[in-house]
Amino acid sequence: MDFSPSARSVDLASRVRAFVDTEVAPAEVVMAADVADRRARGEDPWPAHPLIKELQDKARAQGLWNLFLPAGHEGPYAERFGTDGGTGLTNAEYAPIAEEMGRSFSAPLIFNCNAPDTGNMEVLLKYGTDEQKAEWLEPLLDGRIRSAFLMTEPGVASSDATNMEATATIDGDEVVLNGRKWWSTGVGNPDCKVGIFMGVTDPGASRHSRHSMVIVPFDHPGVKVERMLSALGHHDEPIGHGEVSLTDVRLPVTNIIAGPGRAFEIAQGRLGPGRVHHCMRLIGLAERALELACERATSRVAFGKPLANLGGNRERLAEARIAINQARLHVHHAAWKLDTVGSLGSMSEVSEIKVAVPRMACNVIDMAIQLHGGAGMSDDFPLAAAYSAARSLRLADGPDEVHLGVIAKILLHPYAEAAEKASHS
Amino acid sequence: MDFSPSARSVDLASRVRAFVDTEVAPAEVVMAADVADRRARGEDPWPAHPLIKELQDKARAQGLWNLFLPAGHEGPYAERFGTDGGTGLTNAEYAPIAEEMGRSFSAPLIFNCNAPDTGNMEVLLKYGTDEQKAEWLEPLLDGRIRSAFLMTEPGVASSDATNMEATATIDGDEVVLNGRKWWSTGVGNPDCKVGIFMGVTDPGASRHSRHSMVIVPFDHPGVKVERMLSALGHHDEPIGHGEVSLTDVRLPVTNIIAGPGRAFEIAQGRLGPGRVHHCMRLIGLAERALELACERATSRVAFGKPLANLGGNRERLAEARIAINQARLHVHHAAWKLDTVGSLGSMSEVSEIKVAVPRMACNVIDMAIQLHGGAGMSDDFPLAAAYSAARSLRLADGPDEVHLGVIAKILLHPYAEAAEKASHS
Amino acid sequence: MDFSPSARSVDLASRVRAFVDTEVAPAEVVMAADVADRRARGEDPWPAHPLIKELQDKARAQGLWNLFLPAGHEGPYAERFGTDGGTGLTNAEYAPIAEEMGRSFSAPLIFNCNAPDTGNMEVLLKYGTDEQKAEWLEPLLDGRIRSAFLMTEPGVASSDATNMEATATIDGDEVVLNGRKWWSTGVGNPDCKVGIFMGVTDPGASRHSRHSMVIVPFDHPGVKVERMLSALGHHDEPIGHGEVSLTDVRLPVTNIIAGPGRAFEIAQGRLGPGRVHHCMRLIGLAERALELACERATSRVAFGKPLANLGGNRERLAEARIAINQARLHVHHAAWKLDTVGSLGSMSEVSEIKVAVPRMACNVIDMAIQLHGGAGMSDDFPLAAAYSAARSLRLADGPDEVHLGVIAKILLHPYAEAAEKASHS
Amino acid sequence: MDFSPSARSVDLASRVRAFVDTEVAPAEVVMAADVADRRARGEDPWPAHPLIKELQDKARAQGLWNLFLPAGHEGPYAERFGTDGGTGLTNAEYAPIAEEMGRSFSAPLIFNCNAPDTGNMEVLLKYGTDEQKAEWLEPLLDGRIRSAFLMTEPGVASSDATNMEATATIDGDEVVLNGRKWWSTGVGNPDCKVGIFMGVTDPGASRHSRHSMVIVPFDHPGVKVERMLSALGHHDEPIGHGEVSLTDVRLPVTNIIAGPGRAFEIAQGRLGPGRVHHCMRLIGLAERALELACERATSRVAFGKPLANLGGNRERLAEARIAINQARLHVHHAAWKLDTVGSLGSMSEVSEIKVAVPRMACNVIDMAIQLHGGAGMSDDFPLAAAYSAARSLRLADGPDEVHLGVIAKILLHPYAEAAEKASHS
Repeated sequence: MDFSPSARSVDLASRVRAFVDTEVAPAEVVMAADVADRRARGEDPWPAHPLIKELQDKARAQGLWNLFLPAGHEGPYAERFGTDGGTGLTNAEYAPIAEEMGRSFSAPLIFNCNAPDTGNMEVLLKYGTDEQKAEWLEPLLDGRIRSAFLMTEPGVASSDATNMEATATIDGDEVVLNGRKWWSTGVGNPDCKVGIFMGVTDPGASRHSRHSMVIVPFDHPGVKVERMLSALGHHDEPIGHGEVSLTDVRLPVTNIIAGPGRAFEIAQGRLGPGRVHHCMRLIGLAERALELACERATSRVAFGKPLANLGGNRERLAEARIAINQARLHVHHAAWKLDTVGSLGSMSEVSEIKVAVPRMACNVIDMAIQLHGGAGMSDDFPLAAAYSAARSLRLADGPDEVHLGVIAKILLHPYAEAAEKASHS
Repeated sequence: MDFSPSARSVDLASRVRAFVDTEVAPAEVVMAADVADRRARGEDPWPAHPLIKELQDKARAQGLWNLFLPAGHEGPYAERFGTDGGTGLTNAEYAPIAEEMGRSFSAPLIFNCNAPDTGNMEVLLKYGTDEQKAEWLEPLLDGRIRSAFLMTEPGVASSDATNMEATATIDGDEVVLNGRKWWSTGVGNPDCKVGIFMGVTDPGASRHSRHSMVIVPFDHPGVKVERMLSALGHHDEPIGHGEVSLTDVRLPVTNIIAGPGRAFEIAQGRLGPGRVHHCMRLIGLAERALELACERATSRVAFGKPLANLGGNRERLAEARIAINQARLHVHHAAWKLDTVGSLGSMSEVSEIKVAVPRMACNVIDMAIQLHGGAGMSDDFPLAAAYSAARSLRLADGPDEVHLGVIAKILLHPYAEAAEKASHS
Repeated sequence: MDFSPSARSVDLASRVRAFVDTEVAPAEVVMAADVADRRARGEDPWPAHPLIKELQDKARAQGLWNLFLPAGHEGPYAERFGTDGGTGLTNAEYAPIAEEMGRSFSAPLIFNCNAPDTGNMEVLLKYGTDEQKAEWLEPLLDGRIRSAFLMTEPGVASSDATNMEATATIDGDEVVLNGRKWWSTGVGNPDCKVGIFMGVTDPGASRHSRHSMVIVPFDHPGVKVERMLSALGHHDEPIGHGEVSLTDVRLPVTNIIAGPGRAFEIAQGRLGPGRVHHCMRLIGLAERALELACERATSRVAFGKPLANLGGNRERLAEARIAINQARLHVHHAAWKLDTVGSLGSMSEVSEIKVAVPRMACNVIDMAIQLHGGAGMSDDFPLAAAYSAARSLRLADGPDEVHLGVIAKILLHPYAEAAEKASHS
Repeated sequence: MDFSPSARSVDLASRVRAFVDTEVAPAEVVMAADVADRRARGEDPWPAHPLIKELQDKARAQGLWNLFLPAGHEGPYAERFGTDGGTGLTNAEYAPIAEEMGRSFSAPLIFNCNAPDTGNMEVLLKYGTDEQKAEWLEPLLDGRIRSAFLMTEPGVASSDATNMEATATIDGDEVVLNGRKWWSTGVGNPDCKVGIFMGVTDPGASRHSRHSMVIVPFDHPGVKVERMLSALGHHDEPIGHGEVSLTDVRLPVTNIIAGPGRAFEIAQGRLGPGRVHHCMRLIGLAERALELACERATSRVAFGKPLANLGGNRERLAEARIAINQARLHVHHAAWKLDTVGSLGSMSEVSEIKVAVPRMACNVIDMAIQLHGGAGMSDDFPLAAAYSAARSLRLADGPDEVHLGVIAKILLHPYAEAAEKASHS
């Protein structure tokens, strides 16, 4: 048993932290003000501020680029990994690094480690043809374009993915996409050039073989970003979450990733690490909120005492310390299991953190908001946006309730016959 | 013991409910879209939509106007009360009516029952001179103008009102205001013509006699709305919460309400019913959220079942039912105590509901959000805005922690000597 | 809306309180020591201490007797009611009185208001024949004997009463009882002479018409108290909860109450007020725990301060104040609904308090235990026993989960078609 | 980062588990029945059942003995360690083993790893003279005698150890002990021959140098076990917790461990690992409760479904899975920090688990009780006793509130000047 991260993990995490503190944090203030100004003037708030590109170049030059790329992909794209040796990091190694990125809203984008690009790149790396890699993976790895993932639908309970109504119908050597998707992260940004779309190809096939994943260029006729959505009042520029309609979008059948009917298989592999990455970042976000809370608690005075010395405030801070520490260990352990026994063997662990970590982050951030008083509710501090981000993750990539169901199913499995009986009733 | 509201309370509540359902609800959709459009075009989102005035006229014509005005004020302004007999409602009678208004964000404004106008009108009614009443109370009672309350400050922990740094210095027959206030509700609206400002007049006086309340016309030189604030991403147009600077604002000393040094006394009387009104409305808001949750739970299907029949969802709905019912009784009881034993005798009860009700509302609304999935986070449903409103009330008019302190102080008081000892250490 | 209890309710409650404080409280100390001594000596701890009888006589002489008997039963037994006019109290009137009794473990017994005797007496009063009344109701009303209710079974999930396996088979003019029951409250006491047994009579009848209730004298052959159970380590002498076997217990068919197959009907009527009574008493128990907590918090000193002034302790006390007050109002309201619209119309309310009040009591008592340190865990204070009592009531008379189901069912009912659909899936 | 325990840890844990399952579990049933019988007959329930000695011999023969002894003590006592090589286990290695022991109430005693003997042995090992070791450590290591720790006092808030009133006054070459202690674990057992007593020696010394630790043989005149205490109704035979009076107990001054005034220093070193051990065992206890809950949930049927498929039960089981897993990782991490940076560097971590783990265990056990219905409240299942054990540990070795204070102090420390200011106000 050894809880120390590897030397290169420590090194990269500390460099990422320094970069975030000295480069990203001040830029974020400028960029937030710029978005506010654009909105006030009725201008398009979505194009990324030039600082993003500037910082991306700087990060890349320092080898802080594509660090999400997992160990195991040592092929032709290995040289694009941030790690010097050209070998990917294990999930356990990536965890402390992603945590540092999570302290900032724009850092993941700046290090080319933001969702959903990371998941999309992994899918292309793993399932893409050479042509698909050349056309889409290359520019994504370079950060020249961004991408979206078109899965959730407004019209049905998407917690049950088999509810999906969008279609990817094969018509000769074409596949025709129709449907409406939302919470498609990234579509606000004009750099977002491509999406991975999921839809029903063969309604008569078995439950998990009906759907296909299709690469859809966003400039293709029939693809329309209908509107951008807010989450608890936040739009998360320059990424954002949108609603997209697809009307008779005809694409070559070769745009189907890995062939028709394999969407569930791909989605499972894609979502596992994605969920873990979200949790890693939330640890950083919660830690940042706790730091802000500590600063506020020791600097503001009421009734003649610093807030830290009033009522239950110290206990609240201590509880947050406990909650974050437990959650971080939980995330590290899930990452380590993913590394050592793979996705299937760590399904419970991934679902466990998916439930526990966003909730923990919500609680810690909410406590920090309360300690900040009205300021905490405003956008003068990053707490309201942090709350929006954490709260969204109790729904994104599967709501808590679905993951609790997965955990229970695995837990009850050994209670053999009885469980058998239970699952059929 | 009789839990039935009075006949006129039942009658008014049902009429308000019908008005909200048939008139306000559809207007809200239109007005929200209009605000969004104005924002998108970079236009001023703050002027109230003409529908507001239209609905106000209609509500007034139906006698659904100024219903907040409490029993006891049967003077020259009595004829302006919505109640036919020209006598105010008790707090207990008003509770079910305010609950109905709370189901909508704009209803309180439409019935001329919205904060902070109600509190300001009560202050003017109780402490104002005839001149002040003629100049400010009259148009407020008519809904011709709106008003703000300038108390909370950005630079200090305003949970401790004695921290206040703004000044109301007497200089001959003038009072000079300086300072910066925020979370001044209402200042976004161009109809907001006047504020009640609280500042230090005599720093050498005893702790609760230093401050004065001053009537400040918003068109007076030196008064500036610096910016509008968002709360969890919501701006609450057309009311809004702003930051206001006051720089050498010179006013006649007669603008001080009830004379110098009486601000704490006035504030206490003003905030009591204000807090209860907020809680009454939150009951309605939580009830609305629960209705939405029930609708969603019975209409959306996942894994072959309506959401209501999945996992713990029914239990969550039942817990919300319990929580709202307890909170409503708590609010009604506090209102009844306010009616029967006055502010002083119901201090614990008012603080109790101020802690319990916003928290309950947050929990119920959050549950409803979760049941709505991503839609609940967006502004397609009123849930995200409702969460912002309920969460804000864990801070506005005193944070939970301050009210818990009040409750504990009253609770421990009879534990005589020991409590004595406790309070001094 | 009027939250004041009636004059006779106030009068009786204050007299009960005085009696509990001056008579019962000191006796309880003596009786608890006596039980401990008997146990240490290996003697039978179950026979009631003579002080019980003595105090019962005193209480009865003061008219504090059978106060549970509800308004409406003004027949030949009316003169036995404690109320002077010989008319029963409404549930709303009884609530503050039962709360006072609930502050003590033995008070309900001393005032002849303890479960399950009260429920059994109500059943006999409502459904009993004149013979049954003469034989069993008379001595119960006089407190000469005690009784038990034999419903829950060890072998099946009794939360679903239709699971019941015990039988009450009709054989000519006899009914033959077989089965095993537990958590039969009262059977420890040698004064417990009779039980009301519930068992299956006609397995082929419709779901709620299969069972009968049968009066079973405890000295009848085949009835055996197998053992007494502890609940979280407490035996609750001199009442106690036991496991009872019934083996070929042959009784005249006339011992079936109200005729075969009517057990569910009787049980529903019996359990409603019983649940409300439990909740009324728990309010008193929680209030007592809060008083102890306040005393401890203001009298014990650590780190130079009374416990009340350390960390979050004041907030905990304030939260308990809030929780008890909400729960009390909830109970009073449920009692009032029971009085005004009857059992059927108040099903949700009764289930709501059945879930909320024991949980609240557990939380408040647990907080009081924590403030007492190790002493709170021991039997030096009544807190450990109080916790056991409150915790048991999250299971007795239906576990929380079943009541949440009832509440949800009623809540979702108006969501018509969709709910319909929901309930069938 | 590597979450796997060492090979010898895995080996020992699996052997301990097998021993507990096959040897201890059946013996526990016999011993519990025997204690109940003795109590019923008025016989002394405290002498350990002969099975204890028998199983101890068997465990020892298998090398499952004194496994708690930490790495670092490789002196003359090393051969007594259970580990083959005669080197102690690290805390991280011991954690999975202690977890297995924690699944049973008597296992720690059988493996000679129970509190407070372990802590006492560590103190003697570290601070004892050769004479003290020969007289007390040797027989403790052999399991021939047992010991107690006399620290907590009934008369004062012992959460603040400086409140202590018992005295250890030096009078020439003697030390004279006076005072009253309680929650002295182990004193019920006749094999308990010695205690370590803590009392004030020099009231004028600095706050943490006033107290001494003194070895006190229990057969010495003036030492009296006044009574045994129950914790939530449980006595925990054959160990138990007692109240002990010490009246003019005169002992040679050489009985003072490490010399006068060093009690706090010794206590701190003693309590750190002790707290971690408690937490390790609670993980096992919670895991056992979850197993019982899963068994019950899949075997009991209500409303036509296994309990697991009713309402929120699956979610509750999943939440327990999450909570235990987080807590286990937290404990392992704290153990690892204790191993790698020592007591001082892991103060926050130890306090964190001391707060979080007993609370988690209470929640999980309570959930299991609820799923078991009435059976869970009785002693037919080990759940009521488990709840008592877990709940006690929210108080023993420092209440939650004190540990939260420690965590907050460490957390706020870096918030330099402000924290400085905070800590002095």
